[in-house]
Amino acid sequence: MEQKGELVSYRPDIKVVDCTIRDGGLVNNFYFDDEFVKKLYKTNVEAGVDYMEFGYKASKEIFDPNQFGKWKFCDEQDIRSIVGENNTDLKISVMADVGRTDYKKDIIPKKDSVIDMIRIATYVNTIPAAVEMINYCADLGYETTINIMAISTANENELDLALQLLAKSKADVIYLVDSYGSLYPEQIRRYADKYIKIAEENGKLAGIHAHNNQQLAFANTIEACAIGVSYLDATMSGMGRGAGNCYMELLLGFLRNPKYSLDPVLKFIEKQILPLKASGVVWGCDVQYMITGQQNRHPRSAIAFTDEKRTDYSAFYVALLDRE
Amino acid sequence: MEQKGELVSYRPDIKVVDCTIRDGGLVNNFYFDDEFVKKLYKTNVEAGVDYMEFGYKASKEIFDPNQFGKWKFCDEQDIRSIVGENNTDLKISVMADVGRTDYKKDIIPKKDSVIDMIRIATYVNTIPAAVEMINYCADLGYETTINIMAISTANENELDLALQLLAKSKADVIYLVDSYGSLYPEQIRRYADKYIKIAEENGKLAGIHAHNNQQLAFANTIEACAIGVSYLDATMSGMGRGAGNCYMELLLGFLRNPKYSLDPVLKFIEKQILPLKASGVVWGCDVQYMITGQQNRHPRSAIAFTDEKRTDYSAFYVALLDRE
Repeated sequence: MEQKGELVSYRPDIKVVDCTIRDGGLVNNFYFDDEFVKKLYKTNVEAGVDYMEFGYKASKEIFDPNQFGKWKFCDEQDIRSIVGENNTDLKISVMADVGRTDYKKDIIPKKDSVIDMIRIATYVNTIPAAVEMINYCADLGYETTINIMAISTANENELDLALQLLAKSKADVIYLVDSYGSLYPEQIRRYADKYIKIAEENGKLAGIHAHNNQQLAFANTIEACAIGVSYLDATMSGMGRGAGNCYMELLLGFLRNPKYSLDPVLKFIEKQILPLKASGVVWGCDVQYMITGQQNRHPRSAIAFTDEKRTDYSAFYVALLDRE
Repeated sequence: MEQKGELVSYRPDIKVVDCTIRDGGLVNNFYFDDEFVKKLYKTNVEAGVDYMEFGYKASKEIFDPNQFGKWKFCDEQDIRSIVGENNTDLKISVMADVGRTDYKKDIIPKKDSVIDMIRIATYVNTIPAAVEMINYCADLGYETTINIMAISTANENELDLALQLLAKSKADVIYLVDSYGSLYPEQIRRYADKYIKIAEENGKLAGIHAHNNQQLAFANTIEACAIGVSYLDATMSGMGRGAGNCYMELLLGFLRNPKYSLDPVLKFIEKQILPLKASGVVWGCDVQYMITGQQNRHPRSAIAFTDEKRTDYSAFYVALLDRE
C-alpha cells in the first residue's frame, strides 16, 4: 500500500461532499428550516466544498410525506427554492436507496434538473438492482456513485464479487461506507486499497463515508485519503445518524488545497449548529454508540437508548453481548 | 514501517496506563474526592489496566499546597490511603516534571514506597536534567519513563539528539507525546517508528500519550500501537487537559488481550464520570481545541475561551492566525 500525496501539498482529485442534510436528516426526520438549508448552501459555496447532498430521493409510495421533512424526497422545486439555478462551483447531490426510490418516475433527465450527482446506496445483496439504477441515472446525464453499505457484516467473498459487477457499471465513484462505525484504520486501509485498485482499473474513483462511533470517522477518512481515496464525505460538526460522521471542520483543517476555507464553517457552527443542538437535536459520540461500533452492530439499539435518555451503559453492553 | 501483530491476536508487551487523575487533575486542579480515586483504583484493578498514574510529584516550594488537591504532590501516605500495600497486579505510577520536582527530597527509595514507576516529563531543551532525574529514580529502584513533550514544535534535529542522549539513560520506556493534539496518524507513525527503533536498539520500549484536539487521540494511539509502541496512555472518558486524551473505553474495546475487561470501566463512567461532568468539570473535543490543534499551538488560549463560555469560534480562529 503506497501513500498518494503528502501533508504539505494537495491532490486535485480530492472532492469534499457535505452530507449534513442527508445524513443529519436521519436525526430529525429531515425537518430543517429553509433558513438553515440556505445558510448551509451559502457556507458550502464559500468554504469551497465540492458537493452538497440535499437529502434522499425517497419513494412517496413507501414513505408518507406527512411523516418527513421535504429533504427526504428532494423534489426538484424544493432544491431550486434554495439554490435557484445554482450558478456556483458547488455541485448538488442526492442519495437514492435501492428499493426505496421510484427512480424511473422521480429522477428526471439531467438537462432539466439542478442536481449534478446521484448517489445510489445499496447492500451487497441488491447489487444487480443498484447497477440498473446507476446505469439509468448515468444515461440520464448524471454523475453517479455507488455506496455499498454495511460491508463490515458482509461476506468478503460476496463483496469482491459485488465490486467486480460495479466495476462494469457506469458509476463514476465507488464508495467505501463504514455504516456501523466499527472499522479501525488498518481495516479501512485494507478495504480502501481494494476499492482503489478496482476503481483505477476501471477508470473510476473511490470515496469514503465514515461514522464516528469509535471517534474514528475523521481518522479513517484521512487515512483512506492518504492512500488514494478521492471523494470524502463530511458533515457540519459531524451531524448524522447516531454517533454522526466525519466533522467538516476537521476535514477542511486537514486538507491543503487553498480553495477550501474553514472560516465560513466556523461561522455556520456558531450561528446554526449551536442553536440546533440547543433545540434538542442530538447526535455524536457517546458510550452506547461506541459499544455498537465495537461490536459491529447496527446503531438502532443505541439510538433507542439515547432516545430513552438511559445511562446504564453496563446493562446495555451486557445485553448486546448476547447475540442469539 | 512494518505492522507488529494484527487485530485478532494480542501482543504481551502492551501495557495500558490510566492517567485519569494525573492528566484529569489539570482540569480540576487535582481536587478529586477520595471516593472517586478509590473507585477508579478498584475499576483499574478489575479492568486489568497495567498502571494507574496518581498525579504529579510537584515541588511544594514551587506550588502552594493550598492551591491544589493532594494529587498534585502524591505524598506516599496519600497514595497508601487509597491502595494500602497495593496487593494487586495494578502498578502505581507518578509523574515528575523536570524543574518542577524536588526529586532528591520527595522521591524516596523504592523499597519504602508503594509507587512502581516514575514518569519524567521534559521538553527537548531540558534533556540533561531529565537524564539526571531518570538515572536517580532508576537507581532508587523504580521503573522509569521519559516523556518528551511538545515535540510538534521542536526542532527535529534537536529531537534526534535528545533521543540519542535518552537512549543511553536508564529509562525503561521512551514516550511519544502529542502535547497539542496536532499530529495526524501519518506523522504519528513516522515519529513512532523513530522512537521504536531507538528504543529497540537500547533494550527499551516505546510509549504514546495522545491528546484529542482533532479527535485523533484514540486513532493515533492504536496506529502507534500497530507499528510497535507498547505503553498506551488513556483516561476514563478521555478526561484530561483541554480536549482530553485517548478514551480508556475505546482502547480496552480495541485491545484483544483477555486480561482487559470493559465492563468495570462502563460502570465507572456511569457512576463517577457522569456526576463529575454534571458538577461542572469540563473537558473534551470542542471547536476551540480543534483550532489550536490544527494550528499546532498550546491549548491555553482555547482553555481560556472555554472558561469564558465563548462560542465566537471564527473570531478565535482569526485571532490565532496572527502569529506575530
